[in-house]
Amino acid sequence: MRTRFILIQTSHAGNVGGTARAMKVMGFDDLVLVAPRWANVLRREETIQRASGANDVLDKARIVDTLDEALDGMDHLCATAMTPRDFGPPTRQPREHFAGLLGAPQADDGPTAARPGGVAFLFGSERFGMRNEDVYRCHSCLSIPTNPQFGSLNLAAAVQLIAYDWRQALGGYALPPVSTPERPLADAKALAGMLQHLEQALVAVDFLDPAAPKKLMPRLNQLFNRAAPTEEEIHILRGVAKAMLQVAERAKR
Amino acid sequence: MRTRFILIQTSHAGNVGGTARAMKVMGFDDLVLVAPRWANVLRREETIQRASGANDVLDKARIVDTLDEALDGMDHLCATAMTPRDFGPPTRQPREHFAGLLGAPQADDGPTAARPGGVAFLFGSERFGMRNEDVYRCHSCLSIPTNPQFGSLNLAAAVQLIAYDWRQALGGYALPPVSTPERPLADAKALAGMLQHLEQALVAVDFLDPAAPKKLMPRLNQLFNRAAPTEEEIHILRGVAKAMLQVAERAKR
Repeated sequence: MRTRFILIQTSHAGNVGGTARAMKVMGFDDLVLVAPRWANVLRREETIQRASGANDVLDKARIVDTLDEALDGMDHLCATAMTPRDFGPPTRQPREHFAGLLGAPQADDGPTAARPGGVAFLFGSERFGMRNEDVYRCHSCLSIPTNPQFGSLNLAAAVQLIAYDWRQALGGYALPPVSTPERPLADAKALAGMLQHLEQALVAVDFLDPAAPKKLMPRLNQLFNRAAPTEEEIHILRGVAKAMLQVAERAKR
Repeated sequence: MRTRFILIQTSHAGNVGGTARAMKVMGFDDLVLVAPRWANVLRREETIQRASGANDVLDKARIVDTLDEALDGMDHLCATAMTPRDFGPPTRQPREHFAGLLGAPQADDGPTAARPGGVAFLFGSERFGMRNEDVYRCHSCLSIPTNPQFGSLNLAAAVQLIAYDWRQALGGYALPPVSTPERPLADAKALAGMLQHLEQALVAVDFLDPAAPKKLMPRLNQLFNRAAPTEEEIHILRGVAKAMLQVAERAKR
């Protein structure tokens, strides 16, 4: 699905760079700036520094004068605004809205429009947010749930969160392949054998008194159950027990 | 649940400020810096600027020399690292891991430890990430799923995403109350009445030919079904139809 990020009247170059980086790291590259404070914002030093390698997003970005010019090909507009507006579109949390937007129409949903072909996320200026008239044009208003006592989300951070939730809703990226092989867990028999070995060793080093064992071994059994050791780790623990027995034997001489 | 963010050997003051802001906006305030590049990083101009009002987080923050000193009261450590390590803890996506960490133990889960009392998120330096020996101490390794061709997530942006996912997993914040009242939807009878009114108007302005109506009215019916108008909007649309009829009447004179 086509995805565009639109920054309206952005005043900090660092935020434009941070936005480009935040978009690229989630696999998006269509950025449009509407009437930014600096005409040369895409080439400013701070922008490029904060973009940190997302230069292709900056190179592709367009600067336009009006919101109208930013909307070609987009058929679902999401405002991002801290405060819901009277007469504005419905305000929703991003995850909830994205699930509804991408979900297959349900039989009992009643009439639904087709899944959108192009989704645009609109962000207002750092100081004033979005103008009412820009919010009114949108199909939905996304509100990122924040601390009621401190809702001051940085612009590039807001872009990062929306880009993340949207990418996850679109299916997400897989984790890089892990080089560690699957851990073959030791079975209960192997664990019991190790515990017997360990018990002998604990007796040998005079930590466990066989006449008054209390609940030491059941406690250790529970601990190792929770740790779910691998076969290799059982081998290591048996090696420890063996070394304890050997040193205890030498100490007797 | 106690939650701490630990930055290890951070070199950019802006990231410390951005981290404080990202934490506070998600309702967290326990920040510890291990051996930052600048001893005075909590009071640097760039830090305070990027914190943008999260000064209480900076005021409360501690600077320590070693990771050990940062871990008091924490019993579940989450590394954040781009690349999984051999012999390291299991690598998981944040949402998946948090659901498991907070979920009630299931009957078929086998032995489980208690829910943690203090969770710490560890972030390595901007240039080198986390050292292996620090990752090995952790109970899990969180990997934020990113673009396979560009995984360069800014440090403060990574803190923002983890803080968001963790806050959501803890139950999340509600959206601010919406001042717009619930929309009372018009019923099908009201919609049908409006469409009849509109049909008369469309005939009157010579747009609809009653002898060859084609599928105009069924199309409009579908369009308004999807729009799910309120009673008030039906009233507006009937007003439009009425005005069309009036102007058509005047045009006949």
